[in-house]
Parts: sequence; C-alpha cells; structure tokens
Amino acid sequence: MKPNWKTDELVQYAPYNDYQQDLRKIGLNPNFWYPVAQSQELKKDKPHGVTFGGEPIVLVRTKSEQVFAIEDRCAHRQIPLSMGVMCGSKLKCTYHGWLYDETGKLTGVPYLPEDTPIPKGVKSYLCREAYGHIFVFPGKAELAQTVPFPDVQINENDYKTMYFSRRVNCHYSFLLENLMDMNHQFLHRRLMGKVKPSLIENSKGENWVEAKYKFSGEPHPTANLVLAAGRDKKETVTDFDIMTIRTEYPYQTLTVCGPNSDSPVLKLWVYYIPVDKEQKINHSFGMLMIRRPKIPGLLTLLWPLMRYFTGEIFAEDKMIVETEQKAYDLQGTDWNQEIFPLLLDVRELLKKKGIPLN
Amino acid sequence: MKPNWKTDELVQYAPYNDYQQDLRKIGLNPNFWYPVAQSQELKKDKPHGVTFGGEPIVLVRTKSEQVFAIEDRCAHRQIPLSMGVMCGSKLKCTYHGWLYDETGKLTGVPYLPEDTPIPKGVKSYLCREAYGHIFVFPGKAELAQTVPFPDVQINENDYKTMYFSRRVNCHYSFLLENLMDMNHQFLHRRLMGKVKPSLIENSKGENWVEAKYKFSGEPHPTANLVLAAGRDKKETVTDFDIMTIRTEYPYQTLTVCGPNSDSPVLKLWVYYIPVDKEQKINHSFGMLMIRRPKIPGLLTLLWPLMRYFTGEIFAEDKMIVETEQKAYDLQGTDWNQEIFPLLLDVRELLKKKGIPLN
Amino acid sequence: MKPNWKTDELVQYAPYNDYQQDLRKIGLNPNFWYPVAQSQELKKDKPHGVTFGGEPIVLVRTKSEQVFAIEDRCAHRQIPLSMGVMCGSKLKCTYHGWLYDETGKLTGVPYLPEDTPIPKGVKSYLCREAYGHIFVFPGKAELAQTVPFPDVQINENDYKTMYFSRRVNCHYSFLLENLMDMNHQFLHRRLMGKVKPSLIENSKGENWVEAKYKFSGEPHPTANLVLAAGRDKKETVTDFDIMTIRTEYPYQTLTVCGPNSDSPVLKLWVYYIPVDKEQKINHSFGMLMIRRPKIPGLLTLLWPLMRYFTGEIFAEDKMIVETEQKAYDLQGTDWNQEIFPLLLDVRELLKKKGIPLN
Repeated sequence: MKPNWKTDELVQYAPYNDYQQDLRKIGLNPNFWYPVAQSQELKKDKPHGVTFGGEPIVLVRTKSEQVFAIEDRCAHRQIPLSMGVMCGSKLKCTYHGWLYDETGKLTGVPYLPEDTPIPKGVKSYLCREAYGHIFVFPGKAELAQTVPFPDVQINENDYKTMYFSRRVNCHYSFLLENLMDMNHQFLHRRLMGKVKPSLIENSKGENWVEAKYKFSGEPHPTANLVLAAGRDKKETVTDFDIMTIRTEYPYQTLTVCGPNSDSPVLKLWVYYIPVDKEQKINHSFGMLMIRRPKIPGLLTLLWPLMRYFTGEIFAEDKMIVETEQKAYDLQGTDWNQEIFPLLLDVRELLKKKGIPLN
Repeated sequence: MKPNWKTDELVQYAPYNDYQQDLRKIGLNPNFWYPVAQSQELKKDKPHGVTFGGEPIVLVRTKSEQVFAIEDRCAHRQIPLSMGVMCGSKLKCTYHGWLYDETGKLTGVPYLPEDTPIPKGVKSYLCREAYGHIFVFPGKAELAQTVPFPDVQINENDYKTMYFSRRVNCHYSFLLENLMDMNHQFLHRRLMGKVKPSLIENSKGENWVEAKYKFSGEPHPTANLVLAAGRDKKETVTDFDIMTIRTEYPYQTLTVCGPNSDSPVLKLWVYYIPVDKEQKINHSFGMLMIRRPKIPGLLTLLWPLMRYFTGEIFAEDKMIVETEQKAYDLQGTDWNQEIFPLLLDVRELLKKKGIPLN
Repeated sequence: MKPNWKTDELVQYAPYNDYQQDLRKIGLNPNFWYPVAQSQELKKDKPHGVTFGGEPIVLVRTKSEQVFAIEDRCAHRQIPLSMGVMCGSKLKCTYHGWLYDETGKLTGVPYLPEDTPIPKGVKSYLCREAYGHIFVFPGKAELAQTVPFPDVQINENDYKTMYFSRRVNCHYSFLLENLMDMNHQFLHRRLMGKVKPSLIENSKGENWVEAKYKFSGEPHPTANLVLAAGRDKKETVTDFDIMTIRTEYPYQTLTVCGPNSDSPVLKLWVYYIPVDKEQKINHSFGMLMIRRPKIPGLLTLLWPLMRYFTGEIFAEDKMIVETEQKAYDLQGTDWNQEIFPLLLDVRELLKKKGIPLN
C-alpha cells in the first residue's frame, strides 16, 4: 500500500515551466484579419451580430450587396444594433429608432429637433468578404496595411471544399497546440486505429512554427478510406504521406502530401476567433480541401462519410481541449508541463505575438 | 472600405454623461409603502415568502384574517419561516419548531426548559392590505408617518381593472425610463402600427416628473380597437388623446384622456419592487383601469383581446429592458448617452431619491 | 399594525455567537481515512474519478484485483487520468498516452526518445478496501499511522445492511449538526408522526461528543413498523428505545437499543466527504444495519418499505440542510444562533479538529 516513490517527490507544482507569462491569459492579437461569419450567414437586410474578444460587432449586407461592420451597440442605450432593421443602407436601432450609416456615424434621432446636438456614433471596422467568409480587422484600422490579408489558395477544379464553423469552450491556445502536436493520435484511437506519428522535421521563424510528421501503423479502414480519397493509387495513408502543420500567427494550416505528387491530397485552413472578453470561448472557422480523385463522382459519394468522420474527430478534440480549459479554471494557472520541443516553440510564438488580457 | 469618419472619433467612452453616480447602482428608497404580493396570493394559514431588495419577508394571513409581515428567516438556523406552519396566530419554523408571534418575537423553543434564555426574535414590518395588494414598509417604521400611503382612485362602477404581476430581470430604473420615454413606440411597431408620439409638455417638482404626449399616425387596427374601448364615440386614438405619464417617486401612473371628457379613458398605476440585493431583478405590480363603455358587456367581450394585447406590449418592453441590463452587466458601468431632457429629469429624480447600493 | 416589540431589538446581528471562527469555513481534516466510493463502483480496468475537497483522485482496480489511488490529472496537460485506459497494471492518459504506475510515477512518454528527461509523475494516496467501500487517506501519508482505521462491526448473521451514497449540496457541518440534534423531528412530522425526543444524557471527550435520546408520543404507523422491524416483541418504538448518537471526529454513528436487549436493533455509520474545494458539496456514505427479526424473510419483505422510508427521511434532511447552506451563502457568514448545549459542543469539536479553508 505504501508507494515506492516518496509521495512528496511526485507532487505537481505550479507553474512547472520557466515561462514568466501564463499563456491562457494572453489574448489573440486583434491586428490581423479574422473571419467572423460565413458568407451564407449574412443575408441581405438582416443585420448579424458577432463578437471578437467580447467586442460586439454587427455585420450588414445591404440590398445592393454592400457589406459593412460597425459596433453592435447603440450609442443611446447600448442595445445591440443587430436587433434593429435596415432603412435603405442605414441601420436603425430597434428601441428608439436611432439611425447609423455604414461608418458608424449617428445620422439621426427621429424624435428630436434637427439642431439638437447628438452623439457622434459608434466604432466601425474594416470589413472584407472572401473565401466564403466575412472578415473584419478588429484592431487599429491604420495597422491593416502592415499585415497581409490571408491568402487561401482556392482551386475549385482540383479540390472540393468542406466548411467548418464550430464553437469550442476554451482558450484558442489549446486548439492551436492540439493541432500541432500529432502525438495525440492516441486520443483518436477509436476512429484512427493504431497509427503512430513521428515528427521528422520542425522549424520556426519570426512569426511561424512548422512541423512535418510521418505516420506508421495500421489505420482504421474508415480512416484509410477517408484519408485516401484524394489519392491517385490505392496507397495506404501511413506508408508514404507527409503531414505538414504550420502555425503562421494567428492562422494554422495542415497539408498532407502523398509520395508521388507535389500537389497535396488534403489542405486545411483554420482560423480561431475568441468570442468572449476572457477568451475562454472560441469559434473556429475552417476550410478542408480534398483533392478530387480521378473517378468522377467518387468524392461526392464519399462526402457524407467524410463529414461524419471529420465531425467525430473534431468532437474528440473539442472534448479534450474543453477538459483542459476546465482543469485550468480549477487550478487558476497553467500547470502544463510541456516537454515536446515543437510545442514549446508554439507556446513561445503565441505568447510573443499575443496581447496580455487584463 | 475605409470609413469616412475617423474611427477614433466614433468610439463610445464610458461614462458619457456628466453625472457622478451610476444610476444602476442606486437602490430604490425603502422608506415608502410597496406592494409585495397580490391579496389573492396570500391564503389563510399559508405563510407566503417574498423579498424586497434581497431582504426576506414572510407574509401571514391568520385564520381570523389578521395580516402581518416579519423577517423570513428563523433566528436559529436562518431557515425561511415561510416554510413553516401556523399554530393559531403564531408561526412555527419547519425545522426545530421555534415559534414566533406577529411582531417577530420568539415566544418559545419547544424542547428547552422554560427558563432557558432564548434569542429575542426577528424583525417585523409594517403591513397593510389595500387595492387588492399586500403592502409593506421595508424601511424604518418610524418614517412611515412621513410619507403618504398610495392613493389609488378605484371606481369599480365606471372602470374595470386589469391586474399585473410580472418578474423582469433588470434594475427598476430601466422600467421607469422605458415608460416615461414614449419615443420608444418604434419598438412596438408590430403591435402599435405607425404611431408617432410628440412630447407636448413636461414639468417637474421636488419628487416628481410629468410628461404629456400627443400621438399621430396610423395605429394598427387592433391597437385602435383596444385603446378606443373606453371611449364614447368612435374616435381614433391618435387624433385627440393626451397621454400623461407621471413619476411620483417611487410610483408611476399613466393616464389617457380623450378630447370630450375630463374623466380618463384609461388609467395605469405601476409599482416596481426590487427583488434581489443587487436590485437586478424587479417585480412589477400594476393596475390598468379601463373606462366602461356605454354598451353593456362590450368590455367583457373585449377583455381577452386586451389582456393579449397588453401582454404582448409588456413582453416587448421586458425583452428590451433585460437587454439593457445585460449590456450594462457586460460593460460594468452605465454607458447610456441620454439626450432627451425629460429622461435626464427622470434619471436625476431617481438618483436624488434613491439609496446607493453598496 | 405597529409591533409591540421595538423592531430594532428584534433584528438579528451576525455573528450572534461568541465563536471567533466561522464553522462553515472550516474544512474537514484530511488526515483520516475516508471512503470515497462504494466497492461496486470500482470495476476492474475501469479507472474511477472522485474528489476530496476539490482534490481529484483516480481509483484503479487492476485485473489482478490490486486497488490503488493516485492524483487524477496528468502531469502533462492536467487531463483527468480517469479518462484514460489501463495498460496492464499501469494507467495511460487518454490524450497523449503518458503512462503512470500505481505509485503515480510517470514511467513513459511514448513518443519521446528514451533518454528524454520527463516529469516525475503525480501524487499517490494510501488506499484500502473495506466494508464495501474504497477508503483513501487524503492527508499526509506519514500521519496515517497516528489515526485508527474505522472499525465498523459487521455482523452479517444478525444484521442486514442497507448502503447509502448521496450527494448533498452543503457544508458537511450542517449534516453532522442535523443528525446530532434530534429535536428536528418536527421536520419529519409527515413521516414520523407525533414523536417527541428528549435528551437524557450527553457527554464529550477530546475527539467526540455523544448524546442519548428517549422518544415519546405517537409515531406514524409506517414509522413504527419500519423502526420496530429489528425488535423481538411488538414493542412500540417510543416507549422504551434509547437512541445514542455519537460524533467521533470525523465519523458519526447512531444506535438504537430496545429495552430487553444489549444488542442494538439498529446501527448506522455515516461518513461525510467534502467534494469540492469550498466544501459546499458533500457526499455521504452510510451503512444502516437492521437486526434480523426471528421470523425468517420478514426483513426481506419489509426491505423495500424501509428503503422508501429512509429515503424520504433523508430527502427531508437534504432539503433542509441545503436551505441552510443557501441562507449562509446569501448572508456570507454564519448567523446561526445555536442555544442547545449539545450542539454547541458539536460545533466546538468540528472547529477544533478541522482545518480552516482559505
């Protein structure tokens, strides 16, 4: 009954690692372009409310297809403007009918004499529609020129795209770490079967970290079928494929290349959006592109199975990162004892590029 | 894409207004008479628990119709006495059977020797039944003489009364402001149709603020039918009626007078009761009196429609004031940028007469 | 309407009693053996997570029936090890497959080179299976020798045992006080009928408090039937029985002896386990032993009724102690005005032996 090891030696101490800052108290840097909704969610004349790090933003698509984004609270009584109605190209608050233009300027208070001084209005956001998403720049507009707009290589002829939009109740960093560290395949044992990833290369730069993995073992037949869809021959996944995962702050991509081809069989773009002010809720938008196989219609046929399979994988990841968040909340600080060098690089990058939450 | 206005100029800063105090942190003054239950809720021998600003109060109606109110927690283990049972005219705690009289005095602990020193008891409240409600005076009893008991002019012959009892999850001030500012008719556009209120007069005194509105436009046919029920002729609401809304701290009344009559076609009394200690939950008790039309039975026939209509209006108001409360909670302070002079008077009155919450 | 008593004299002041410490902020002393699960809950190869005062503990029963308990969070990312799987006699974390032995020692990180320095592991707990329960020693292992392991006199031939396992949302002290103070029979009036307990003796020692009660009155027929099952003759409960309740820190026992017998007709052991860190949630494990009557099969026949009856009694106690906790939470401190000397002794004991929560 008495442990062989002295209990005291085994006790965990927080914080274990030598970092000064708690990664979970670092906010995502707002001075980047972020998708905050899928294009299809934003209907004409139906204002759509979203949040970035707790900041309320209302997205608008006018009848003439103009898209804009302004602060989602009326200057008067802070009611979300997304509860309001469109009046031509202007947005009218649902409560007392205050009227805003696309720059957030308050252009009228209907019941007051024309010359009454009125508040100036609300904040506006740079806004662009691209790749099936509505992007905003939540930070300082003057910094928008300093960062590139995401370059997603869409190639509808050769790839079929699956879109993701998912709420996960955790800090974005848990998700970024999860995707970079493929050693967590044990978590997916039910779906993936016995696959063993090996890190074969990792590198980093000023604003990025990249890892290349090779897989061995015996994947589950379903996994094999799903992951092999984009391949030319009936090669198994584990023998030849190279998986490249890249965190280029604040975005992430995952690419799988087969042995005989320079063009990836699978490409994934993922964007993480902090929803609330504490950034303990995240919304992930993703685009998964699968190379179209030579047999016409095969991908369409396999699509529901692929949707199911990726959905199940995601559900496991969601469960585990939300569990990490809960453990963090109970402990109050980051007790993480990371020892995988690649992950230490990722954590360093997220801390360096992020903004401390207060 | 770049806004015409410099973004920074449009940003809202809190607090906008020059008030020193945050209105939402002002509690309702307890040194007034407040209804805390409808008479029908208080059955004989069935103690009934309520709260005023978080203070638990148990109302009792004895077999002999005596009504009293004492602190709703046993001096022993703080169990609500409203869970107890009546023992003649005394109230017995459900846990160990401690016994209290109508003054809150502890008159016995059944299992201890007679001469054992026992706690004195619990607080009592002045209590009166009137206008179909149970009123208490939650403040200092000695101040009860300094304020008048509400004078509701009941006239059963000429008016039919509709009673309201509603829980709203917001600070009482949002409700008082909502009723005074008739410019929020835009909120009720679905039910009211296109009506445009105009403030034609406003005045104030030491403990009151009053406003008179006139309506124009095209009310929805249902609205017209409901609001015109108490009228002599088939006059439309909007052409002639004057609506007077008065906040006489801490009560509110709303009166609608037609053109040919000194007697109002509609009279509304509203009482706002803070439920919890933070006063973020409110209970509203109301009496809406509709003048009986000359055609006998017409009002009875229209009653269900009128109940439905007023219920729907109230639901919209409830939704919007609860949204204001949520915005307030997220922001932590009152970002309200009120510019309507009448409302500034109301806010000033509520601050002057209330008691800061700590 | 004006109270006879001056209101101010009746107001309750907190804290009433002269204790310096707030009993509800005293944690249960971890340096004792506590049951944390029933034996039947711990299946072979199915790790089972529990908590003691917020500390997560995973219980394991290996294929070879070895039972052990270690900290229920992986040293890596704090994921509960109870979500993991058994690998022989070792426990494997579900996320990245880190492997722990029965002492909590981390014995392997599968994806890292053998010579990589790894964290030492997690805490282990002394663990014993007895009386149908899994016991752990949550405190300092070196102190385990200083306190006796609970001595429950099981006597299967003469007694039939009913096991309890119940979650109650309150501080353990409310439950310990509840059982000691039999004057709360008024609470159980619906089930017990008119019974009147009288304290006939009480005593105390360094680590215990004991009370003897006699009952009079007219118990409810069902109560009589249930409580009289273990008796030789058809004696009523109230005339002759002596109930002895003993708090021997941190355990409690209740014994009922009939008039003609030295062997109790009923024996109850109760253990209270604080679940969360604030110790506002409690898990009670209990063993109720009923003496087998001479008529074979009678007890088995009555068993469902006895289960129902004790379940109903417990439900009333749970309701009332949870109400006490809620009152405490609203008031923020202990307003309890205890005047029953026996209970003052119990409170003193719990404060003396417990550990202040911080």
